[in-house]
Amino acid sequence: MKSTPAVVLVSGGLDSATVLALAARDHPSMIALTFEYGQRHSHELSCAASICRNQGVSDHRVIPLDASLLAGSALTGGGEIPRPESIEVIGSTIPDTYVPARNTVFLSMALAVAEIAGAADIYIGANAIDFSGYPDCRPEFISAFQTMARLATKCGVEGVPLSIMTPLINMTKAEIIQCGIDMGVDYSMTSSCYDPSDSGQPCGSCESCLLRAEGFAEAGVVDPLVGASV
Amino acid sequence: MKSTPAVVLVSGGLDSATVLALAARDHPSMIALTFEYGQRHSHELSCAASICRNQGVSDHRVIPLDASLLAGSALTGGGEIPRPESIEVIGSTIPDTYVPARNTVFLSMALAVAEIAGAADIYIGANAIDFSGYPDCRPEFISAFQTMARLATKCGVEGVPLSIMTPLINMTKAEIIQCGIDMGVDYSMTSSCYDPSDSGQPCGSCESCLLRAEGFAEAGVVDPLVGASV
Repeated sequence: MKSTPAVVLVSGGLDSATVLALAARDHPSMIALTFEYGQRHSHELSCAASICRNQGVSDHRVIPLDASLLAGSALTGGGEIPRPESIEVIGSTIPDTYVPARNTVFLSMALAVAEIAGAADIYIGANAIDFSGYPDCRPEFISAFQTMARLATKCGVEGVPLSIMTPLINMTKAEIIQCGIDMGVDYSMTSSCYDPSDSGQPCGSCESCLLRAEGFAEAGVVDPLVGASV
Repeated sequence: MKSTPAVVLVSGGLDSATVLALAARDHPSMIALTFEYGQRHSHELSCAASICRNQGVSDHRVIPLDASLLAGSALTGGGEIPRPESIEVIGSTIPDTYVPARNTVFLSMALAVAEIAGAADIYIGANAIDFSGYPDCRPEFISAFQTMARLATKCGVEGVPLSIMTPLINMTKAEIIQCGIDMGVDYSMTSSCYDPSDSGQPCGSCESCLLRAEGFAEAGVVDPLVGASV
């Protein structure tokens, strides 16, 4: 167990719920950060709150971000860019769901919070396997961010070994789910769908729903969000 | 003259007014960004607007930032940390006016804006001479940020040579002022004071006022903000 708190980016998805549980194993307390930036799927935000409550996080901060900053993606804005229909396109090029500089902005804000709170470890559920098309989910990006962060901050300059923790980066979706199940993560509280109904029901057909379904099937576990019907 | 717009961080201070003029020489258009993050000296914000109008910037964006993100400094928050009184402490250690991860957060947001706008050059008035105590004003930080930015973004991965431009980084305050005067920068519109009056008059005694006064004296130019009386 480390002696300092961790800062954890919690989007409300399956990956970040797992990361939060992993961070909790090693830190006495956590500061969870969720960004509100004009996501189409704002249902994620209430999932993030539920996950934090469920995992006993007392310091959960929802940070508003000017939506125009993170525009230019099929996940944000007015819907000018259609989402890709097929799962085959994932990994071949940078997907339309890429949000310019998103992880850089999120991690920078987490860095500010971490320095103020005296936290050395910042957790993010970046994954290079299922979404290898996102440049800011690659290990080389994370490593470059960490180098920059140590040079950027007073704590870094003074020798605090600031780390960007990406425990999921090389795991398959099935491995992430198995890891979370082993730690008791309740995946019924998570949201993966790019286009859920008003009540939060997943569409079942977007690429994120398909990746999630594949992951649960491969892990041999029923997704509590969709029940035994899938 | 380059073919793409530039993104320029404009705080309302003397340095950023100079940087804006330098960027304008090489770019067909500019996007100026000013952050509102609970500065004690909000007079800076109106200076930023005046500078942009004066220099013909049509796209000036004021971006609100959760003030608690950039806390823990003598420049923000409720005044728990007193500002240093004496100019001698500058450069010897990291000053109390250091705002955790400020330039990282600002540059990250500028990166998002740049990628969306198709801009390759991001300008910041970082200076390593007068304020060498700030870790995020050092050339090694800027270089690390640029490396990270190229890995973080779709445009970077696709070969756009994203650059963090710091034309002032090794200039003295006097050199910056001389450079700006040569380009016709109107320094009467800038604000440097940490604690101006309600009408925007500088206090004349904080370390930022002292550095400014020293710079104008060394450049042999009268500061239009204080007139011939200084």
